[in-house]
Amino acid sequence: MNKDGIPSARKAGETGGEPFSFTIEQWAKKIEYALAQPGAVGPIRNIHRDDKREFDAIFIGGGAAGRFGSAYLRAMGGRQLVIDRWPFLGGSCPHNACVPHHLFSECAAELMLARTFSGSLWFPEMAKRIVSIKEVVDLFRRGRTGPHAVMNYQSKEQLDIEFLLNAPVRIVDANTVEAAGEAFRARALVLALGAEPIRLQAPGSDLEGVHDYTTIVETLDREPGETVVVIGGGKTAVEYGCFFNATGRRVVMLVRNRIVDLIKDAETRTYVIDRMREQGMEIIEGAQVAAIVGDASGRVARVVAETQSGRIEIDTDFVFQALGERPRSQPAVEALGVAVDGKGAVIVDDRLRTSVPNVYAAGDLIGAPMEMFKARKSGAYAARAIMGEDASYRPSDWPDFLHTHYEVSWLGFSEEEARARYRNVVVLKMPPDNPNGLDIGLPASDRTMLYAMAHPRMSGFQKLILDGDSRRVLGAHHVGYGAKDAFQYLNVLVRRGLTIDELGDMDELFLNPTHFIQLSRLRAGLRELRSL
Amino acid sequence: MNKDGIPSARKAGETGGEPFSFTIEQWAKKIEYALAQPGAVGPIRNIHRDDKREFDAIFIGGGAAGRFGSAYLRAMGGRQLVIDRWPFLGGSCPHNACVPHHLFSECAAELMLARTFSGSLWFPEMAKRIVSIKEVVDLFRRGRTGPHAVMNYQSKEQLDIEFLLNAPVRIVDANTVEAAGEAFRARALVLALGAEPIRLQAPGSDLEGVHDYTTIVETLDREPGETVVVIGGGKTAVEYGCFFNATGRRVVMLVRNRIVDLIKDAETRTYVIDRMREQGMEIIEGAQVAAIVGDASGRVARVVAETQSGRIEIDTDFVFQALGERPRSQPAVEALGVAVDGKGAVIVDDRLRTSVPNVYAAGDLIGAPMEMFKARKSGAYAARAIMGEDASYRPSDWPDFLHTHYEVSWLGFSEEEARARYRNVVVLKMPPDNPNGLDIGLPASDRTMLYAMAHPRMSGFQKLILDGDSRRVLGAHHVGYGAKDAFQYLNVLVRRGLTIDELGDMDELFLNPTHFIQLSRLRAGLRELRSL
Repeated sequence: MNKDGIPSARKAGETGGEPFSFTIEQWAKKIEYALAQPGAVGPIRNIHRDDKREFDAIFIGGGAAGRFGSAYLRAMGGRQLVIDRWPFLGGSCPHNACVPHHLFSECAAELMLARTFSGSLWFPEMAKRIVSIKEVVDLFRRGRTGPHAVMNYQSKEQLDIEFLLNAPVRIVDANTVEAAGEAFRARALVLALGAEPIRLQAPGSDLEGVHDYTTIVETLDREPGETVVVIGGGKTAVEYGCFFNATGRRVVMLVRNRIVDLIKDAETRTYVIDRMREQGMEIIEGAQVAAIVGDASGRVARVVAETQSGRIEIDTDFVFQALGERPRSQPAVEALGVAVDGKGAVIVDDRLRTSVPNVYAAGDLIGAPMEMFKARKSGAYAARAIMGEDASYRPSDWPDFLHTHYEVSWLGFSEEEARARYRNVVVLKMPPDNPNGLDIGLPASDRTMLYAMAHPRMSGFQKLILDGDSRRVLGAHHVGYGAKDAFQYLNVLVRRGLTIDELGDMDELFLNPTHFIQLSRLRAGLRELRSL
Repeated sequence: MNKDGIPSARKAGETGGEPFSFTIEQWAKKIEYALAQPGAVGPIRNIHRDDKREFDAIFIGGGAAGRFGSAYLRAMGGRQLVIDRWPFLGGSCPHNACVPHHLFSECAAELMLARTFSGSLWFPEMAKRIVSIKEVVDLFRRGRTGPHAVMNYQSKEQLDIEFLLNAPVRIVDANTVEAAGEAFRARALVLALGAEPIRLQAPGSDLEGVHDYTTIVETLDREPGETVVVIGGGKTAVEYGCFFNATGRRVVMLVRNRIVDLIKDAETRTYVIDRMREQGMEIIEGAQVAAIVGDASGRVARVVAETQSGRIEIDTDFVFQALGERPRSQPAVEALGVAVDGKGAVIVDDRLRTSVPNVYAAGDLIGAPMEMFKARKSGAYAARAIMGEDASYRPSDWPDFLHTHYEVSWLGFSEEEARARYRNVVVLKMPPDNPNGLDIGLPASDRTMLYAMAHPRMSGFQKLILDGDSRRVLGAHHVGYGAKDAFQYLNVLVRRGLTIDELGDMDELFLNPTHFIQLSRLRAGLRELRSL
């Protein structure tokens, strides 16, 4: 270590193969230092120089796909190397994607609660109060090296992964890469280069103050003003838009098509949108950004958009664009000629093989769904294929979620999709259809109790879709908190043919956020199922 | 309706069998009025006078067991009547047990967050601030009729249950009861009388200011002072103790044996207790209350207890006792002579039959586990038995939870239990064993993000216990938020033989509160499993 407590370069494997061992705290310091002063820290090597075996695979990119693929291949007894330009494994998720997104969504939920109970109980007066976005971003910047450090520690000390970090990589051929001035060869390459935000194609999209989910955590250096324009209507747009709204700002969502169109169940989608609007969000569907106009200093001053009711102009110094992501396939196309689809995704088969022999691809690079489970699983399945296992992977029937001020989770069919396919669809939902509509104190559970007692309309919405003939669950939908994790496991049960009778026979942990078990039990006695 | 908008007695079925239909809002008003002025509202009848069939069963008590049993029996085509002294169905849970408990636990979690971030971001300055307990209790009192109303509405309009509410019942014989001046006969009786708090056997336990979970919501009429003494160390004691602590008061827990002894996994239990102590809770195990001493006005002034380090005296005006519950079996013993066990629980077989022919029992009345799932399921299984179905029920292998400032969920074996039974136990946990201990930024997910970024030790703990030979999951343990619902479903999978390979192949909704899926995937490649 040097005098600042930062594990030194020479002793920490930067220059060769000396064995080293860092605590998580030491890793955190090293990563922080490397991020703050990119030039000052050289490549970070954990390469077993005494292992003379050829690498079975080199994973290009140490994000979810590369790291999980590496762990799996290593666990199977193979030898791998994972190379990343960043000084940590784990990729964009903990650095500027899913982890900050979860932090901002947590703030959105907490701020909605504080605003709803403003000035009562222990909650501060929130009316007209604008909360700093930059403080939350700074909190994240300070905190993110913690998870990074855990992943480096785990990867090295527990998973025995060989890595080369803080080092850009150049693909030489289907078996060779170059990084940190050294060539590495392997039986196979696994491309895991990830994806990056698609940038708006409109004049002014490069002005200062125009952000996406990466730049907001990397470059935000001043407090946004009182109006935010969000361009987009998918997961990321809504998640960040709700956070900005919860800070007390005016938020205008400019959505080209339909907002949260990925929520297929119409009633669930309506509940979600209505709550966003109740929080004051302005949602303009069918809007097309014509231009972002700057001021004399090169900073955003206003957004001009065409809408169904004509051209609008919105004064703002802060624009957030969330138009989806594009696979970062260009380097692989140029170096290897791997085939890509129209959206730039590297085309793979169910063994994660690209069009080029010995070259595999995984993660966001292979296209939708650009979700963590697919990144990790495709990395692991690539490893299994490379190690000769007969394992096939195509993502299918996965559960999904997004955040507004709430957690919204779903799996299987929407009510509409179910009715199009089955003659006897039965729906169990909470609140039930009733003359009071949603203004009733159920559902309720952890984190919606205060709403259930004082603002029942805000306490969530949920429905379970069944086939009345087979008695099987066809879909499940939840708006609230605390059910996201459940949907992972529930989805497996549904895919295995879960029936209302089996659900009704489970042991609920009351008050359970999904009231599915008890609602099922109330109807399971019926020979001819009826909705509830 | 009368001029106050309260559905009138005559028109609302109180006097006979006129059909009536209330909205949820109308039910809420009626229940509120009946609770506020018990004498002014007569019995509330929903009895199908034109149905000339004999009742298959009369459920005595309209709590979870009676209501779910009624729904199930009705769904099967039988005829039932459920009678309750309260003007609503649902029993103690929404009135003074699990629902307020969840509200208070939510406040505990929110207050811990506010105190941890006191004066930063948007959180108010919380140091030395004492938050009103009575305001939260009042919020609950105002809000609880909402869920009551939903249950009356659902029971009548959707489940077609016949009921007689706001009417004490007298058991006449194994087929007959009397209520509201009328005798009702049925093929079978289902006793669902519930349980009540066990009262402390010590001088002064009847002083003003000595509360349990029922009296705190029913009679609290002044703000407790700055010191609370909690007597007990089980679920209820800890849940309420953490709430009182979170309000900013000194809380002394006097525990006869071990606190949260029901958390069997030692490491999980330690994590839970350490976090409680960090919040300032004083936990004294091996303590026996000698006396509660009052002041001249008959109000609690101090608690005297014998502890392992001698006699202590604590000045306080507020004592909360949580010593468990005793089945309310006395009326049934006196009227019918049903056999009870040493704890007063009515003894039933796996058809929920008592020792008296045609008399069944369900819910808390039949003893441990006094949990919602058992109440509801035993009611439903009693209905199935009465309707001649060959269905047997004994609670087994259920998942469980409690609240501190956190949600704590568990299922299956603790690590210690597993090691006593299996030779090759493998543990996957987060945080991992490491030189930094718990001071690292994982686990993290919804509602622990702020902690993960700034106070990582507070961001939770989780472990999965596996049999390395069969690769099966033996147990799972979680401290954090948002995993309680998941444990309902995960438990089913574990009971069906869930393996690490199956877990690793699931689709996580990242950041998922239980990191079990991804941790499993990191190890599943190993032929010989190792801990993580």
